[in-house]
Amino acid sequence: MTALRLHYSPGSCSLAVHAALEEAGADFEAVRLDLAAGDQFTPGFLALNPKGRVPVLETAHGPLTEVAAILGYVAATHPEAELAPADAFGLARMNAVNAWISSTVHVAIAHGLRGYRWADTEQARADMAAKAVSNYSKCFDLIDRDLAQGPWMLGHAISTSDFYVYLMTRWLPRIGLDTTPFPNVADHYRRMCERPSVRRALATQGLS
Amino acid sequence: MTALRLHYSPGSCSLAVHAALEEAGADFEAVRLDLAAGDQFTPGFLALNPKGRVPVLETAHGPLTEVAAILGYVAATHPEAELAPADAFGLARMNAVNAWISSTVHVAIAHGLRGYRWADTEQARADMAAKAVSNYSKCFDLIDRDLAQGPWMLGHAISTSDFYVYLMTRWLPRIGLDTTPFPNVADHYRRMCERPSVRRALATQGLS
Ligand SMILES: N[C@@H](CCC(=O)N[C@@H](CS)C(=O)NCC(=O)O)C(=O)O
Ligand SMILES: N[C@@H](CCC(=O)N[C@@H](CS)C(=O)NCC(=O)O)C(=O)O
Repeated sequence: MTALRLHYSPGSCSLAVHAALEEAGADFEAVRLDLAAGDQFTPGFLALNPKGRVPVLETAHGPLTEVAAILGYVAATHPEAELAPADAFGLARMNAVNAWISSTVHVAIAHGLRGYRWADTEQARADMAAKAVSNYSKCFDLIDRDLAQGPWMLGHAISTSDFYVYLMTRWLPRIGLDTTPFPNVADHYRRMCERPSVRRALATQGLS
Repeated sequence: MTALRLHYSPGSCSLAVHAALEEAGADFEAVRLDLAAGDQFTPGFLALNPKGRVPVLETAHGPLTEVAAILGYVAATHPEAELAPADAFGLARMNAVNAWISSTVHVAIAHGLRGYRWADTEQARADMAAKAVSNYSKCFDLIDRDLAQGPWMLGHAISTSDFYVYLMTRWLPRIGLDTTPFPNVADHYRRMCERPSVRRALATQGLS
């Protein structure tokens, strides 16, 4: 048996973890879920994650959830890949980027794609979907500014945050945006798309 | 000068960090902001945190944002306080609880209190506010279940997650809920309220 099992659905936020696992050279197996078919609500999956969401990373010690936490774990358990700063402050900066993406950036676009989580009426969902575009765009203003120093989110070295930003960038077209207003993001995305780790994760997920 | 400066607003999510700093015995100064007056949008504060939110923890290396990241930093830099598990898996479990609280639990209640972030019409905000109550309540079903093993969120030892859960519990009345349906949460809250660290943070913030 491989040491780790990643439960993912193609193109979802689990892709950030998937590509980071590839970058780390981790020994893992990828288990596909079909979210549209409701695979995340089967009793077997809910036993792993009662929240009914991907990703889940099964480890020898038990299951882990939440992109931000799993990214930190992958970096910590594969130190030779140097996917996280070694000092406490640098690590906290990476965790802050990842916490912001999960609490604010991912949440911003989810209001365009899964508004039913937070409101029941059609009208409210239309309102949220409209505002999601400007909210998501504002998040990318900040990311573009952070990348101005670059070349990576934390500066000179790549980290797990770059895989999370890559995924958020990949999602821009889902709400009708693209990288045109964000030149540093566009350049970052091009560089991420060329990485063998990202290509391998996409290939496994059947994406291009 | 003290080593750390916490920028907080009374009773906000920064209280989780404030109490954790007290618990860690950290040498820090607390700087108060008035969010209603817009202190988070002054140029001085935006230079520390362009996102315009509390908490910010100023350190000798620079400012840190995001509750989940700051909690991890406080634990890592005060190891003698044992506010985080020492092993990678245990630490990732703590980070997963904290990432879930910031991305889902805090976001759930924010739809009741700050719906203007995600929708512009009054009607949409009323819809979100109504649904926020059941969403927040469902989060506490999960927290209550996690605390059933207890006595702390991660099991036998207290961790930063307990300070974050304490704060979310303190917020229940803000959307008309209380701990009655969540007996393990009620017990956890009572124990947290008695801790000298929590009392000191409340006293500094002028709260009871
Ligand atoms: N805060 C969670 C969010 C996870 C999440 O929302 N995953 C989505 C895919 S991007 C999902 O599983 N959705 C299934 C559903 O909503 O039913 C994290 O960062 O891991
Ligand atoms: N994801 C951030 C959220 C921070 C946040 O929303 N802070 C609130 C107080 S609880 C705030 O500063 N609000 C000011 C505003 O919305 O203008 C974190 O976890 O630190």
